[in-house]
Amino acid sequence: MSIPKVKNTPWLAFSIDRSSKKPVFEQICEALRHSIVSGSLAEGATLPPTRVLATELGVSRSTTVTAYEQLVAEGYLQSRRGSGFQVCAVGEADLAVEPEAGGLQQDEELVKPPLPFEAGQPDMRLFPHRQWAKAVARVCRVSPQSMLMGGPAAGNFELRKAVAAHVAEWRGIEASPHQIIITAGSTDALDLCLRVLTQRGDGIGLEDPGYGPLRHFARFHGLEPSFLEIDEQGARLPEADVELRTVILTPSHQFPLGGAMSPSRRQEFISWARAAGAWVIEDDYDSEFRYAGRPIPAMAGFDRLHRVIYAGSFSKIFSNSLRLGYVIVPEPLLEQFRAVMARSGLRASYMPQQALAEFMHSGEFYRHLRRVRRTYGERRKFLLDRLTRDFSGAGWFRDHQAGMQTVLHLHSSLSDKDIARRAAALGVAVQPLSNASAGGGHNGLVLGYCAFSEEEMAPALDILQRCLEEAASAAGS
Amino acid sequence: MSIPKVKNTPWLAFSIDRSSKKPVFEQICEALRHSIVSGSLAEGATLPPTRVLATELGVSRSTTVTAYEQLVAEGYLQSRRGSGFQVCAVGEADLAVEPEAGGLQQDEELVKPPLPFEAGQPDMRLFPHRQWAKAVARVCRVSPQSMLMGGPAAGNFELRKAVAAHVAEWRGIEASPHQIIITAGSTDALDLCLRVLTQRGDGIGLEDPGYGPLRHFARFHGLEPSFLEIDEQGARLPEADVELRTVILTPSHQFPLGGAMSPSRRQEFISWARAAGAWVIEDDYDSEFRYAGRPIPAMAGFDRLHRVIYAGSFSKIFSNSLRLGYVIVPEPLLEQFRAVMARSGLRASYMPQQALAEFMHSGEFYRHLRRVRRTYGERRKFLLDRLTRDFSGAGWFRDHQAGMQTVLHLHSSLSDKDIARRAAALGVAVQPLSNASAGGGHNGLVLGYCAFSEEEMAPALDILQRCLEEAASAAGS
Repeated sequence: MSIPKVKNTPWLAFSIDRSSKKPVFEQICEALRHSIVSGSLAEGATLPPTRVLATELGVSRSTTVTAYEQLVAEGYLQSRRGSGFQVCAVGEADLAVEPEAGGLQQDEELVKPPLPFEAGQPDMRLFPHRQWAKAVARVCRVSPQSMLMGGPAAGNFELRKAVAAHVAEWRGIEASPHQIIITAGSTDALDLCLRVLTQRGDGIGLEDPGYGPLRHFARFHGLEPSFLEIDEQGARLPEADVELRTVILTPSHQFPLGGAMSPSRRQEFISWARAAGAWVIEDDYDSEFRYAGRPIPAMAGFDRLHRVIYAGSFSKIFSNSLRLGYVIVPEPLLEQFRAVMARSGLRASYMPQQALAEFMHSGEFYRHLRRVRRTYGERRKFLLDRLTRDFSGAGWFRDHQAGMQTVLHLHSSLSDKDIARRAAALGVAVQPLSNASAGGGHNGLVLGYCAFSEEEMAPALDILQRCLEEAASAAGS
Repeated sequence: MSIPKVKNTPWLAFSIDRSSKKPVFEQICEALRHSIVSGSLAEGATLPPTRVLATELGVSRSTTVTAYEQLVAEGYLQSRRGSGFQVCAVGEADLAVEPEAGGLQQDEELVKPPLPFEAGQPDMRLFPHRQWAKAVARVCRVSPQSMLMGGPAAGNFELRKAVAAHVAEWRGIEASPHQIIITAGSTDALDLCLRVLTQRGDGIGLEDPGYGPLRHFARFHGLEPSFLEIDEQGARLPEADVELRTVILTPSHQFPLGGAMSPSRRQEFISWARAAGAWVIEDDYDSEFRYAGRPIPAMAGFDRLHRVIYAGSFSKIFSNSLRLGYVIVPEPLLEQFRAVMARSGLRASYMPQQALAEFMHSGEFYRHLRRVRRTYGERRKFLLDRLTRDFSGAGWFRDHQAGMQTVLHLHSSLSDKDIARRAAALGVAVQPLSNASAGGGHNGLVLGYCAFSEEEMAPALDILQRCLEEAASAAGS
């Protein structure tokens, strides 16, 4: 026995397609919506009673009742007791726009590996994906709830304990897990700090040169940046006549110049903050990467969390894709941080937190950290050796034995933006130092080395060398 | 043979504790830092040669070299070729503040389950943690890299395909996965939209009553809110003399009043947006929860993504702790969205995305959604039955057969804030409707019912009933 494929129901001028996967009541809804929107069913028109329509369409009455009730809920129909269903006003009928041809997108965002010498990129090829997956799978087995059940807004307590142990050992900061708030990365950590500490129109001190996005970010918060120049000892203090309530510093490893702030300068900043009732936000973005000796203790440890708020991140050691960072908050500010968090809601995904805590406790995290530090150290040495050998004609660099990038300061006859443009055209990504500076006076190339093997850097350095030679001869001619 | 526990080395006045777990070179560093900061080693002082100190302390020379080099890196010492190591200036010595007594925190943030009738809370006890853990464990086994290797900034492509299928089926929106951007929850989705679409000082239309945090959020973006009152058809259009470039609407299920925007009002908004060159942001926060008929199609589907940007979330169906939401972007805006994302960086954690895509593809997601919808429907019915039976003296409600909360509108003799205060004192959380309104004129209680069993709601309703009676007699007296 064959069912006719399409049955026309001329009365309401629509058809039920019984071969369609779409439920019959949904087909009725669609047809009615279309008739109403196109105007073929006018405002105020009374629809056939459900029983009549059901007979007309050869469907059960409950199907037509469901369809009508759905359209009442959507506002296409109204139901008047005793007088059935009527069409509501629906406005202009210019909705029947055809969907755009669209089809395949030209601009598919392909997943591209970073180009040499993009800065701040860890090498995820070195990541112990299998061990991490094992840690996650263990959480799946042992405490699946911990991935999704909301814990404290400040984050999984095990992870906060692991962070407390980490910063005590690696950063010289004694903090209770209660002072630690897990955030969705370091930008989110800074966002939280600024929401707590600043008001629109406040001044804020930023290092110059510094991390470029920070300038936009501060302006987005309605803050007026004052730029703090960098000298031999690190960022300079704000001028006496500038009123600032916050400064953001990178004391362990200045971005992008490298180098640690001297203890005396740290002390001056802390004294200044005390006197001014101001706060120092320490952006400690990559200080686990030190290639000689121990990491330089954080300013927050030096100050014992009195006037310094510490912002750390897992993006560089672990992965940017995890979106996890943390803030360590001085006791007197805890209430204010909690109040802002209660308003703005949970920030970081809970899902990776328990696994990350176990990854840290088990030591896998530190095995990974030591392994990449060794590799990054070798890559750094390779880069600096090449710079010494082949680039001394173009400029100079200082070896700070730390971080994820180095700066090749260029002679004034060369323009960093010009070189960066030439290199980019040949697939080599170097950041002009001048872009990192608001005040100007800086001319150099920021070269990230962590994410690239020697085999990847070598040809990129050849290209860069050629760009510099061409630029020099263009300048000379 | 026994090692003496503490060996005094009077010359530099510090001791090496060989029983300590702290490495000897670190002990030397600490002692020297302390001597420098406290002033007992003055600026310019020359330190004993490494060989001499090594002999003094009974340690290897490499240990003292390591310690000195570390302190050079930290800026406490400087090394002059031929003249050894000297102390640098370190500023005032007021660092020796004792750590605060601290100890155990009084205010430990305990993990508390939500109180009845907190709104917008899913019941995570109903969540299929085991099935989710299985999906995650599968990713751990099959493609561990997908958890951490950065994919497109817009999110895991499999998840975006799953979202495209989801909104086609559930929300009536035809969108390509390329138009979908995964965000860190719905607030982040709105944040992204406002960054793209607005500039400081712009006007923005917000529903009144509406989601309270949105007002703060809009002001944080420097926007001037215009409030759109809600009538029978939904939010009203902005006054003709008010210039707005964006409005944020909840057309499928107005928050907090419930009820869907009528098709004619939707059409009016779309026509208005076209004429004004404005954009509608559709905040579709909980529309999968409809207890009769099919979900009401989204306004973005109605408009075919011409003037409507769609913001969805996994927080209500899945878990708030996952921090995942999404934006669906009209084609002509895609470039602008991508540009803003390139500046602000990755928003959502990659880690859950592949597992969530598989959870959706496998159908587990929808089994869960259907299961909770049934349970929430039963809880809703229980609550509304009790409201009808026992609360009609206090006010009235409308049954919109959708969402996660209902509003009990109170008679004007009762104050919603007063009732909420009385209930809160007895452990019952009801939100005053007046708090959700900027313009006032609303008096009611917002009652969330999804996260609470009938056994949990029953005593809370008894308490609420008592509060209303007491308030009524207090008002009468």
